[in-house]
Amino acid sequence: MIRVAIIGASGYTGAESIEIILRHSQAELVYLSALPDECGQVDEIFPQFKGRCGLPVEPLDFDKLKGKADVALCCLPHKVSMEFVPKLLDAGLKVVDFSADYRIKDRSIYEKFYGVKHTDTANLEKAVYGLPELFRREIKGADLIANPGCYPTGAILAVAPLLKEGIVETDSIIVNAVTGVSGAGRNPTSKFHFPNMNENLFAYGIGTHRHMPEMEQTASQIAGTDVKILFQPHVGPFDRGILSSVYCQPKTKTSGEKLSKLYRDFYGAEPFVQICEAAPAVKDVAGTNYCHIFPTCVKGMVVVFSAIDNLVKGASGQAIQNMNILFGKEEKLGLE
Amino acid sequence: MIRVAIIGASGYTGAESIEIILRHSQAELVYLSALPDECGQVDEIFPQFKGRCGLPVEPLDFDKLKGKADVALCCLPHKVSMEFVPKLLDAGLKVVDFSADYRIKDRSIYEKFYGVKHTDTANLEKAVYGLPELFRREIKGADLIANPGCYPTGAILAVAPLLKEGIVETDSIIVNAVTGVSGAGRNPTSKFHFPNMNENLFAYGIGTHRHMPEMEQTASQIAGTDVKILFQPHVGPFDRGILSSVYCQPKTKTSGEKLSKLYRDFYGAEPFVQICEAAPAVKDVAGTNYCHIFPTCVKGMVVVFSAIDNLVKGASGQAIQNMNILFGKEEKLGLE
Amino acid sequence: MIRVAIIGASGYTGAESIEIILRHSQAELVYLSALPDECGQVDEIFPQFKGRCGLPVEPLDFDKLKGKADVALCCLPHKVSMEFVPKLLDAGLKVVDFSADYRIKDRSIYEKFYGVKHTDTANLEKAVYGLPELFRREIKGADLIANPGCYPTGAILAVAPLLKEGIVETDSIIVNAVTGVSGAGRNPTSKFHFPNMNENLFAYGIGTHRHMPEMEQTASQIAGTDVKILFQPHVGPFDRGILSSVYCQPKTKTSGEKLSKLYRDFYGAEPFVQICEAAPAVKDVAGTNYCHIFPTCVKGMVVVFSAIDNLVKGASGQAIQNMNILFGKEEKLGLE
Amino acid sequence: MIRVAIIGASGYTGAESIEIILRHSQAELVYLSALPDECGQVDEIFPQFKGRCGLPVEPLDFDKLKGKADVALCCLPHKVSMEFVPKLLDAGLKVVDFSADYRIKDRSIYEKFYGVKHTDTANLEKAVYGLPELFRREIKGADLIANPGCYPTGAILAVAPLLKEGIVETDSIIVNAVTGVSGAGRNPTSKFHFPNMNENLFAYGIGTHRHMPEMEQTASQIAGTDVKILFQPHVGPFDRGILSSVYCQPKTKTSGEKLSKLYRDFYGAEPFVQICEAAPAVKDVAGTNYCHIFPTCVKGMVVVFSAIDNLVKGASGQAIQNMNILFGKEEKLGLE
Repeated sequence: MIRVAIIGASGYTGAESIEIILRHSQAELVYLSALPDECGQVDEIFPQFKGRCGLPVEPLDFDKLKGKADVALCCLPHKVSMEFVPKLLDAGLKVVDFSADYRIKDRSIYEKFYGVKHTDTANLEKAVYGLPELFRREIKGADLIANPGCYPTGAILAVAPLLKEGIVETDSIIVNAVTGVSGAGRNPTSKFHFPNMNENLFAYGIGTHRHMPEMEQTASQIAGTDVKILFQPHVGPFDRGILSSVYCQPKTKTSGEKLSKLYRDFYGAEPFVQICEAAPAVKDVAGTNYCHIFPTCVKGMVVVFSAIDNLVKGASGQAIQNMNILFGKEEKLGLE
Repeated sequence: MIRVAIIGASGYTGAESIEIILRHSQAELVYLSALPDECGQVDEIFPQFKGRCGLPVEPLDFDKLKGKADVALCCLPHKVSMEFVPKLLDAGLKVVDFSADYRIKDRSIYEKFYGVKHTDTANLEKAVYGLPELFRREIKGADLIANPGCYPTGAILAVAPLLKEGIVETDSIIVNAVTGVSGAGRNPTSKFHFPNMNENLFAYGIGTHRHMPEMEQTASQIAGTDVKILFQPHVGPFDRGILSSVYCQPKTKTSGEKLSKLYRDFYGAEPFVQICEAAPAVKDVAGTNYCHIFPTCVKGMVVVFSAIDNLVKGASGQAIQNMNILFGKEEKLGLE
Repeated sequence: MIRVAIIGASGYTGAESIEIILRHSQAELVYLSALPDECGQVDEIFPQFKGRCGLPVEPLDFDKLKGKADVALCCLPHKVSMEFVPKLLDAGLKVVDFSADYRIKDRSIYEKFYGVKHTDTANLEKAVYGLPELFRREIKGADLIANPGCYPTGAILAVAPLLKEGIVETDSIIVNAVTGVSGAGRNPTSKFHFPNMNENLFAYGIGTHRHMPEMEQTASQIAGTDVKILFQPHVGPFDRGILSSVYCQPKTKTSGEKLSKLYRDFYGAEPFVQICEAAPAVKDVAGTNYCHIFPTCVKGMVVVFSAIDNLVKGASGQAIQNMNILFGKEEKLGLE
Repeated sequence: MIRVAIIGASGYTGAESIEIILRHSQAELVYLSALPDECGQVDEIFPQFKGRCGLPVEPLDFDKLKGKADVALCCLPHKVSMEFVPKLLDAGLKVVDFSADYRIKDRSIYEKFYGVKHTDTANLEKAVYGLPELFRREIKGADLIANPGCYPTGAILAVAPLLKEGIVETDSIIVNAVTGVSGAGRNPTSKFHFPNMNENLFAYGIGTHRHMPEMEQTASQIAGTDVKILFQPHVGPFDRGILSSVYCQPKTKTSGEKLSKLYRDFYGAEPFVQICEAAPAVKDVAGTNYCHIFPTCVKGMVVVFSAIDNLVKGASGQAIQNMNILFGKEEKLGLE
């Protein structure tokens, strides 16, 4: 049994992690923590856990945590995470961190986009980017996993075969994505107040979204050369899911059939990536850890659609996939 | 031209009032006010008015207002309204007040349910309850209209013919209603945060909702005897509309046909009440000032369904219907 | 391993059953069947199963089925089911039937409400009504389970303690319920076309809904006397869930505290029934087999709210709960 | 008074046209027609018109129509329209046609994308493309208006200033658009069945959507050179609205400020086009004839967002805007 602590259990990714661990046959929840004013019984904070989970959500106490848990799923927000992760590691836990704090290797880019100094560069260097389909081997031996952002997960899985094979131009990739509203987190705001967001759809983060440098870093690593991505996120009136529509310029003429073969070869037996013959739908992946991808050609352009659940493959599910790898377990446990 | 001021223009009922006045051929907006920190250009606060309304929303200034407007649509919240209404009346305006402050004639009930002392009992006495289908004559000569609550509008229109004719028991009426989320106002809260409210439905205000005494007062007035109503509101994942399902015990056996005739006779040529032969749907009245009613019998009980738009017939539309009456205009102006 | 066949696998309850069995550690799918023109690979019919289930959905062939499966989850519609259930039983399978065909013991009532002759009265007599919280003992030894309707599940769980203890009048119970649209099944119709149903809410089945006699039969059985229920269903713009708001007249004065204690005592350690201290929300039970119940008193009336997922506790989840009982397994398997 | 006939009144664009004409002070409905099996009283077909419109919807009868109406809003589907339009013109009516039959000047392209021979090429030549912001002068004197498609309206208004000024490359424009479900029409299908479409989002018409050649034709006309557009539509879980996110390569470096000025100069006093300083939202234009546009620069690319209501500016509203122009009326009548 993997003994799991969830740090920052009062948000949506915390709740989703609890949900998954409750169905996991070789992991158990042992400790839930949150900010002091968000503590209480977990089934009062999230009534969906009534009768299913009786744990308290407590203020973080490293003495209590030490020796009790094998791994921490750290669901803290950006900037807060890097204060706690070193202590979690020191307490002997493996850590899967949901924040951006350990994702961006170039700290100057991190500091520019997140507007703070990075205070834990030692661990930043050691952290492994937790996209199992691309970095499974590195993940296996790691102590600290930087769990990828939701948008980068959908976008990178969509373009990785193209970049690896070097068949598209790397200076003109456009990622147009639409997320469900759970991606905005659990704090109520005017934009996401139901009567404002319902029946609505709009772009945001125009030219400034923090997932853009994360995408470019990973894309460049895969391509072995600098990749420029114009990433444009939108939010639509649904809870879960990200649909990425990706437009690339091929270096030489290609076809839907060739692309389909390329993607099937690339992802082979990956348990959570499915290559489709038609446009994927966010509802088909909602609540699952799967990524559905459809690559095709339109008017000479390569167009790739990918769909994931932002809270599962884009956050908690991928974290638990990483956890399963870290502990040598079957990768699909809890995620079927 | 009726010159209209909207006091409290930064909320949903303010916006809906602006929308209707913009389509009104004999009324014009002359003044919009709100709390200082909610002021600005109206099309910045509500981008739907870009190119349609160029007025500023200003802090309320009675000197500016005086002589400029003929009527104030006072969209302030409960308790705040009674501070401003006397001054609006003193400034020579007719007032249609959206709050509950002038609806409940028994100030002890008001004070119990709203938890504050009533500070303007002089005007409370003079105010006319603005449900035109029942009190059109009184509205005509009034200076101050207490615009009915959204739930009472739907419920009272549903039961008025029964109570007027004395054909149902008055101690066992149940009003089960479901509202859209705009009824909760424009301030974001956790309950109405999109990912919490979407795909959700729940009861609230159990035994304590403030519209219960308002319903009972008007029902009793119509019946000429004390009426007890068990009112149970719910909120569902849609923007606009209230569906009321009303259950009554008839004094003697009746039938759907008899009820249908009773309702048609009672409402006769009322422009905004339509008697249906099947269950009304909130979408059919959304965005309109209409109330669709279907009275029927089930297993010996009288069951009546009514549907309104909570922001139109339940608030701004009814206010402008009242305004039209106050100024001797065709009642449907702006509401077609 | 329980070997499970799903008969009628191409509808929503079929898909939900597949979903649950895929997560069940002691059951496996061995056979999926549907009408000939709804056959194909299950992951083409339901793309959410890509990579998760590779079975074909085939036209029903009893020779293939025989000896292959231990139990059939029979998701066929009313009237069709009773043609196939006897053959499934003859083939040596235990059967959990989702239709109404084996629920209503009085065949004259069945024939009135469903408009067909009952053609399998022998098995009708033997069938056990599969509401485990009330009939667990009978379920244990049965061969044929009549899985309850979605509305009756929510309503009966809400009123059973009241009826068992005889503390409410049995001639004036009102069940006002709102379901999500998945309850209407998978066949597209005008009423449930997205632009018609979205942002909508309406009553239907007024005085005629087929779940009314089913509720009354079970309620009467619990009460030991004839119970009359006025059941009024509505449909709202969400996928899953039923909220039942139940109004009863108590025989003698009671209180919320007493009711809360009564319900806690009655349901004791039931794994899937949770007694709440506030209004339950459909979103908290969506995707789960749980029923959240809040009993209270309002103005002398007993008011009980219950929330379930119509596809899980109201259909497939309850069927698998029944299956677990039939095979002596831990009742929560697959349903955590 | 303009006397208006609506041909094909039983669909969503028919209903929207009725809605607008009911609020139009200088136009009146005189005749509504539909296919024989879709006829009946208009308020039975569309209950939202109860008490608002008492006209029958009748099978089309040219003898009845002749002399009765000044203009026909022809809401028939593609291919059907070209059978009726010549007869409507012969009957002496001006025609605003909602179908694609008169939009595409190159009949070989029409025939390729719509899969039928064009049978009314005489009128095809004379028809004027009814996008008032670009072709107001031509519209004035026309007898037959080809009312633009919903997607082309949003996309062309977004790119017209760029093409007119020649500041972007014309071989690499990408239009990524998301529509609400009303765009799919009123006939129920599996894809748009509420439980399938709700909480969903997906691409469709990949490389094959019929609005692509329409966009390219108009874009080329504006640019004075061949323009290639990669148009990718998506559908999301909301009723109304199209958000177009357009990506273009500028010929020389530009900036958000320059683009904003360009767009403001280009659209000047256009009543229905608003240039925004931030991302437009579909909800802000829903139910209106407005188009909100935000042009900006991201990483050297020109990115333009435009939002319209597909049923209003994308169909019925634009048709009535065209009608107002045809009859020399104030262009905003009925559309405020």
